[in-house]
Amino acid sequence: MVGSVGNGLMDLCDKGKVEPLPKDFDPTDIVEPVPALDLEGVGGEEGSGKNTEIVLGRNVHTMCFTIKEPEVDDEVTGEREAYMASVLARYRRSLVERTKHHLGYPYNLDFDYGALAQLQHFSINNLGDPFIESNYGVHSRQFEVGVLDWFARLWELEKNEYWGYITNCGTEGNLHGILVGREVFPDGILYASKESHYSVFKAARMYRMECVKVDTLISGEIDCIDFKAKLLQNKERPAVINVNIGTTVKGAVDDLDMVIQTLEENGFKGRFYIHCDGALFGLMMPFVKRAPKVTFKKPIGSVSVSGHKFVGCPMPCGVQITRLKHINVLSSNVEYLASRDATIMGSRNGHAPIFLWYTLNRKGYRGFQKEVQKCLRNAHYLKDRLREAGIGVMLNELSSTVVFERPKDEEFVRRWQLACEGNIAHVVVMPNVNIDKLDSFLEELFQKRSCWYQDGKMSPPCMAADIGQENCFCVLHKK
Amino acid sequence: MVGSVGNGLMDLCDKGKVEPLPKDFDPTDIVEPVPALDLEGVGGEEGSGKNTEIVLGRNVHTMCFTIKEPEVDDEVTGEREAYMASVLARYRRSLVERTKHHLGYPYNLDFDYGALAQLQHFSINNLGDPFIESNYGVHSRQFEVGVLDWFARLWELEKNEYWGYITNCGTEGNLHGILVGREVFPDGILYASKESHYSVFKAARMYRMECVKVDTLISGEIDCIDFKAKLLQNKERPAVINVNIGTTVKGAVDDLDMVIQTLEENGFKGRFYIHCDGALFGLMMPFVKRAPKVTFKKPIGSVSVSGHKFVGCPMPCGVQITRLKHINVLSSNVEYLASRDATIMGSRNGHAPIFLWYTLNRKGYRGFQKEVQKCLRNAHYLKDRLREAGIGVMLNELSSTVVFERPKDEEFVRRWQLACEGNIAHVVVMPNVNIDKLDSFLEELFQKRSCWYQDGKMSPPCMAADIGQENCFCVLHKK
Repeated sequence: MVGSVGNGLMDLCDKGKVEPLPKDFDPTDIVEPVPALDLEGVGGEEGSGKNTEIVLGRNVHTMCFTIKEPEVDDEVTGEREAYMASVLARYRRSLVERTKHHLGYPYNLDFDYGALAQLQHFSINNLGDPFIESNYGVHSRQFEVGVLDWFARLWELEKNEYWGYITNCGTEGNLHGILVGREVFPDGILYASKESHYSVFKAARMYRMECVKVDTLISGEIDCIDFKAKLLQNKERPAVINVNIGTTVKGAVDDLDMVIQTLEENGFKGRFYIHCDGALFGLMMPFVKRAPKVTFKKPIGSVSVSGHKFVGCPMPCGVQITRLKHINVLSSNVEYLASRDATIMGSRNGHAPIFLWYTLNRKGYRGFQKEVQKCLRNAHYLKDRLREAGIGVMLNELSSTVVFERPKDEEFVRRWQLACEGNIAHVVVMPNVNIDKLDSFLEELFQKRSCWYQDGKMSPPCMAADIGQENCFCVLHKK
Repeated sequence: MVGSVGNGLMDLCDKGKVEPLPKDFDPTDIVEPVPALDLEGVGGEEGSGKNTEIVLGRNVHTMCFTIKEPEVDDEVTGEREAYMASVLARYRRSLVERTKHHLGYPYNLDFDYGALAQLQHFSINNLGDPFIESNYGVHSRQFEVGVLDWFARLWELEKNEYWGYITNCGTEGNLHGILVGREVFPDGILYASKESHYSVFKAARMYRMECVKVDTLISGEIDCIDFKAKLLQNKERPAVINVNIGTTVKGAVDDLDMVIQTLEENGFKGRFYIHCDGALFGLMMPFVKRAPKVTFKKPIGSVSVSGHKFVGCPMPCGVQITRLKHINVLSSNVEYLASRDATIMGSRNGHAPIFLWYTLNRKGYRGFQKEVQKCLRNAHYLKDRLREAGIGVMLNELSSTVVFERPKDEEFVRRWQLACEGNIAHVVVMPNVNIDKLDSFLEELFQKRSCWYQDGKMSPPCMAADIGQENCFCVLHKK
């Protein structure tokens, strides 16, 4: 065990007896970085080749809420209950603070599911297939199928031609889509742009599929010239393709039409399966004019989108839609469940569909359209303000992900919970990110930045390789 | 779309306009079976060979809560809100009823997480590795690691030697354990008894592993004589073994010690990886005297247990514990997350760890011990009452899963939400299943049964092949 950090809570955790929290206990200590880092035994760093600048980890044992065996007289004294209530109240306060200062992850933190609190008392489980009831009666398939229908309609697949389910996260959607692709083309090679989500490459490894990484343009989109070259190297084997509807870092949207054209013009007609990873933009794109349409009227196999991102949800979840005909290749009957087995997971969270149903019902397509427009407007506002201040920045046309110079100070990065890669950071403008929040972020950034680069010894990093020369304002590329 | 079923709610879903629910609307219709079955397009049945008696499915489109685009004046009239509140209130009532009549699945439905309702407003996400913080600050790793420590202690693995995470369900635990096994022994063959959970065979297919099914004894335990024979057929390749700590149907506990002995005596020393699937009993076994101990002091690689089963949780979740040294083979650095990538899922539900933390803290090891004893006592009560009534029944020594004659009437099966397979059904006696509930179940069963077998034309099924001659009371085996 790492040396004690010396704040009240940690000491408390290590003692045998439960004591009331000290008066000087600082709730933010719970989630703020602790100074003592221990990477020993955490591993995974040696020989990784790339020197990651982010503080990669701290052993969370030092700041965990240890579970203590109750004392025999706990029920009488009520100390246990008091201790737990106190931990929870402080934790809640830290969540409020952390939720307020959040810009980097594409999660809409603005939701009110108070009306659904009454359902927390139930163990709601949609185990197995959404379209086939199991004998377990405490489920929410009525809501789940309503949500799936809504998405199938959005992506233009008929009720009797689609299959889908509500997943635990974007990764499960990608795992499912790529698995379906592999089962349709067991000998297929997986193609994905190098800026695809890491779960795509994890899938390749899990499924023992050969995986070919395709180059990207500066925007982050797949480079179809490189794609063609790589296809032609493997003409004899079918193709399973992951198409990004919004990449993780730059929010780039692969050109679906050009991907299909490249496949068809190079002898792959009828020998490809496309999975669209629409984790974030799958739900935004339909409401952006000029965006290439994601629709099952085109020869795609599956689309996934996250539920906790643009919609907003207390826990991660996602929606997976595919063609019913593909599912039969996955199915095997499992009598125990009275169901076929076409989902990745077995027991499935029955609360998530109700959260989604609730929001979709309240907002409707029109409500989402309004929010998408607001996000794009605010993203442009952020980009313009950064550019005015001479900070390198890029915003893809169809995106609300603003990519800019990585702030020099890791504390600032953590405070605003920015996602970073190399020299770039990004803010994803979600419905809960309003102009006020952006202003206070900008003000703080400008102020800090004037300190970082004050003495002229350091200058902002060059980002030409990441976002293009025209977007970079480093010493070299400043106009 | 299937023809309308004619109850108020369904009609409502199909109409364009939102209307108040009719007064004669019956809330139980929401979850009770609807008469119209539509297996068309659901597929997966043809050519399955085995004629499954359970009503395998109904197209849930017929009973879903369709999402309607809000009317422009909805906010003014408040109709939308009223409609949704009404659907939810009725749904809640049906959940109460379904929760009351539940015996077949190993879910503890008895919990009170009222103190945690305050956290539902937050999007809590433990994305990535529990031991390495990401930049996203709205997480619950402090609770997650506390829970993991508790389980590592239970299974005797030191803090600096274990790695684990809180999963979405038992399936994710099995997928993870078997993946780790495969990465440790890429050429390994997967061995699992034929009564293993279906997710084990799903893993083999996903991971493209050769899988050998091993026979079982009547009790449901793995047959180590057959295991030995199958090992010897593949002496040259390492073994990845799934050991059941409580099978799904019979609650049978594989003899871990004998599995290890069989491996070591047949030349597999140092060439095997054991994953223990302790979905339900992983948390009960430690508190049962005479049970073979699951401990990392034995040469096992990983243990998984479900969180929504014995502990009880609103949504499915699980705990996965493995040896830290194995995790490095899985890891790859993902800068976007500032984390290694050793979990199956990416975004991870941050509420589940808090639910588990809350219950473990309140009950402690002693509390669980008491509950396990109560469950075993009640399971024996149920077995004795069934046997007295001349109904064939089996209860494994270390188990609270009571296996008995499958009730003839599917409506009865659904009413009590029994899990069935072939001629057998089971009740899993969980902490929320008390003597009163068992009595009302038994009373109803005895009464129905006297009708089913009244005229002497039909007689109870023979279960000798499933639970042994000595436990069967069919016409042939009645003493």
